[in-house]
Amino acid sequence: LNVSTKSSAGNFFEDFRLGATYQCPTPRRISDGDVALYLALTGDRTAAYCDGEALVHPLLVFHVIFGQTVRFVSLNALANLGYAEVVWGSAVRVGAVLSTELRVVGLKENSSGKSGIVYVETVGRDERRAEVLRFKRWVMVRKRSAVPTAYRDAPVVPSFLTSVGRSELCTATDALRFAVQTGGHFGAEDYRVGERIAHGDAMVINPSDHMLLTRLAQNSARVHFDAHAMDGRPLVYGGVVISHGYAMSHAGLEHRMGIVAVNGGTHANPTYAGDTLYAMTEVLDVAADLTPGIGALRLRMVVIKNGDFGDVATYDPMEADPRRDGAHRYRSNVVLDLDYWELMPTRTGEVG
Amino acid sequence: LNVSTKSSAGNFFEDFRLGATYQCPTPRRISDGDVALYLALTGDRTAAYCDGEALVHPLLVFHVIFGQTVRFVSLNALANLGYAEVVWGSAVRVGAVLSTELRVVGLKENSSGKSGIVYVETVGRDERRAEVLRFKRWVMVRKRSAVPTAYRDAPVVPSFLTSVGRSELCTATDALRFAVQTGGHFGAEDYRVGERIAHGDAMVINPSDHMLLTRLAQNSARVHFDAHAMDGRPLVYGGVVISHGYAMSHAGLEHRMGIVAVNGGTHANPTYAGDTLYAMTEVLDVAADLTPGIGALRLRMVVIKNGDFGDVATYDPMEADPRRDGAHRYRSNVVLDLDYWELMPTRTGEVG
Amino acid sequence: LNVSTKSSAGNFFEDFRLGATYQCPTPRRISDGDVALYLALTGDRTAAYCDGEALVHPLLVFHVIFGQTVRFVSLNALANLGYAEVVWGSAVRVGAVLSTELRVVGLKENSSGKSGIVYVETVGRDERRAEVLRFKRWVMVRKRSAVPTAYRDAPVVPSFLTSVGRSELCTATDALRFAVQTGGHFGAEDYRVGERIAHGDAMVINPSDHMLLTRLAQNSARVHFDAHAMDGRPLVYGGVVISHGYAMSHAGLEHRMGIVAVNGGTHANPTYAGDTLYAMTEVLDVAADLTPGIGALRLRMVVIKNGDFGDVATYDPMEADPRRDGAHRYRSNVVLDLDYWELMPTRTGEVG
Repeated sequence: LNVSTKSSAGNFFEDFRLGATYQCPTPRRISDGDVALYLALTGDRTAAYCDGEALVHPLLVFHVIFGQTVRFVSLNALANLGYAEVVWGSAVRVGAVLSTELRVVGLKENSSGKSGIVYVETVGRDERRAEVLRFKRWVMVRKRSAVPTAYRDAPVVPSFLTSVGRSELCTATDALRFAVQTGGHFGAEDYRVGERIAHGDAMVINPSDHMLLTRLAQNSARVHFDAHAMDGRPLVYGGVVISHGYAMSHAGLEHRMGIVAVNGGTHANPTYAGDTLYAMTEVLDVAADLTPGIGALRLRMVVIKNGDFGDVATYDPMEADPRRDGAHRYRSNVVLDLDYWELMPTRTGEVG
Repeated sequence: LNVSTKSSAGNFFEDFRLGATYQCPTPRRISDGDVALYLALTGDRTAAYCDGEALVHPLLVFHVIFGQTVRFVSLNALANLGYAEVVWGSAVRVGAVLSTELRVVGLKENSSGKSGIVYVETVGRDERRAEVLRFKRWVMVRKRSAVPTAYRDAPVVPSFLTSVGRSELCTATDALRFAVQTGGHFGAEDYRVGERIAHGDAMVINPSDHMLLTRLAQNSARVHFDAHAMDGRPLVYGGVVISHGYAMSHAGLEHRMGIVAVNGGTHANPTYAGDTLYAMTEVLDVAADLTPGIGALRLRMVVIKNGDFGDVATYDPMEADPRRDGAHRYRSNVVLDLDYWELMPTRTGEVG
Repeated sequence: LNVSTKSSAGNFFEDFRLGATYQCPTPRRISDGDVALYLALTGDRTAAYCDGEALVHPLLVFHVIFGQTVRFVSLNALANLGYAEVVWGSAVRVGAVLSTELRVVGLKENSSGKSGIVYVETVGRDERRAEVLRFKRWVMVRKRSAVPTAYRDAPVVPSFLTSVGRSELCTATDALRFAVQTGGHFGAEDYRVGERIAHGDAMVINPSDHMLLTRLAQNSARVHFDAHAMDGRPLVYGGVVISHGYAMSHAGLEHRMGIVAVNGGTHANPTYAGDTLYAMTEVLDVAADLTPGIGALRLRMVVIKNGDFGDVATYDPMEADPRRDGAHRYRSNVVLDLDYWELMPTRTGEVG
């Protein structure tokens, strides 16, 4: 009897090669089953993803693409540090087969010598090779050994845009339209910068709820599933929190056509099964005239757990950090602070 | 920063206009994913909804139509008081897109001045505008202010049939047929009024189980999801109890073709996650000759939790109410008492 | 009011007739919804069951066929004693309608007079009557009465093969192929007898997780659902453990094409919700040249709960049984010991 080396322990910092590309397993057909499960898991009511057009929710596309990168990037990850330039492309319809390519775009060994930061660009494509999602991400990954790498003294750190430009937003929305039955009353031109929306919904995260969505995306990172090793409290995959926050942000944004870009986001505190989530939105920017009939809203979504926002007009997810004079930190019940672009038809708009 | 008024707090009693109609969001495609989820959530074994015909279970149709009314009717509801004249119409097949229209058919302000009863008729249609479900319902809704309305002194209270007539039952069942592989042995003519069936199955309701079905129907009423606000005990949506009761009522009714009408029902006590449900059925009426080859059974389904029926022949879901002489009330473990019509082929019948 | 006899209490030992066949309810269409649910419930990453070919996972096929036998075989079962000669046949694609036939192939009354062993052969077929699965199984079933049967003194006990022969393995895999995007690097010829693979994944079983899969298969055995009667600890259906073990056995076997036979298996200890499972695999036999381009691996999968394997090279799922000199028993945290055949392409292979 001998121990096989075929089950990889995953990539360590030293295994990533700058500029290298990697085709991720496993090409994944998106079916009506996935669409229904996404709805059952989140309760999302965005009209465009419920009707006869069989469009797939962009956040489900995100989870599937992200899930395909886990075996290559995340098995020895210590922390997901950030996202940037997340841009959705071609609309995905039921029947699409998604696959994912990774490229290592930066490497920086930490001064501790025990880990390094890996910067990867991820591109998801459908079976016709049309790009459906592109994003950049940086992750802290364990080193295999203490021997310094070239990226300790000469790190390669890419620069990222702080926000996706309006011209980058995909408006090829021939299948999207102003849904007269969304239940909403407001078009892009009705929103004002600084406006804050208290959405009113609530959602407790049950153990099966978060694991079903994480497994559906074939994200096998152990921290989400190993209750025994984690004292009965596996960590909820951050994407689950994004999906619930988005689903709960429906009231007041009923005409929304779908998230088209993420500028940045912070998982400020961990979420565990049993936590009840609540969401509010602040309008950061309004592009009422992105293309005829379609505008875009830049929105900040804040998700908290097991509490309330109090006075929404003055709510601040940050508080003074008693550990450092003048510094601020997220309140302990803030679990997500997400800056994203949403397409929104104009009230007078007619689309395709 | 300012607080948006775009996220509606929902309708108060004063907002309902007698005779007004309202088109509900969100048109909803029913897919194979929904069908499989319904089966996974309930374990329903009714043969007609499992085989190659891709028919959609009538109770799933009910949940979707009901869910579409929640944003308009239920956000300020204090209690769902009753149902009447629930009648299913055209069979729904996978691929149908369901939408829902509401009409306010009665208004009655309560003497407290704090709430009123809203009577609504709900009609669900498929994408060809064929009626798939119609029902009436009355709900106690909060008033916005203490100012009396016209419906305090002059209430408009519609009258409802105590049972759906045999001639109203939809037997356009070209797709339904006597399933030789249902596992059953009895046709409509074999059932006798007063016969009671102990079904023998059991089902615990887990937190994800009830929320998945409630979210699948896009029912976003907070009482079902806000564990934080409800001391960890969100209320199970009554429709979940109906579905489990129906699924468990299979043994002894194996040849059933599907529920076609509900005459009335009472959610006698709340159900919470962790409760284990059990079902029994009493035959109230037998229409063995509804149409050639098809009969109908009027059935009373009683669902209890965390206990047993004892002697089924003498079981009474009611008990003397110690608070009022001569009065009766439901036993504390009764969660559903439902009076409905079921189609049942005759033993000798041939359909379509 | 009278108690119906229509709801069968199920078959007792005396009800089984040697040689009799029985067509099981309920013919079951397998849809995209089932496929997506299987993935969400298990996280299985086997490439062949995720991509555009819409093949159905063989273990989902097993659960559906098994579930169809429950009403006939299991309602009065005291224990599932074993499986043998489990062989998958024609590949199942989305849209197939599966039905199941049982044949009683052996009967042996126990000396206690209270129960007996029923040996059944189960055959699952698709809507074209092509055989998709065949297996034998023996179950201990309660007797209705103490009166001895003919099978006490003259038991009929069939003999079973201890392993499915290589020539019995179905390689009609025109739809399977060497998936360049499985993420793996090893073909059939790379595996060695005695090699042990520690897979590294982990999976906690939540209450909804196991019940959703059990209900999806329409397996209604009460022990899996009646929390009230079982002190809050319903038993996890053994098939759920097989599915999770198989899903977790992916790392190191990435190129696998799907389980094609089970030689035998033991559910060594019960699994309950809350248990976290871990899997390891030992290579028992290698048939690198089963057919051009395709080999087969005979594998032993061991699944444990809430612990670790320690040194995988020397791990033994058995320990000395202190109750009997020289005897051995499974360690208390071993939940599954499965001996099966897996198809594996050769590294140089080209299929179809």
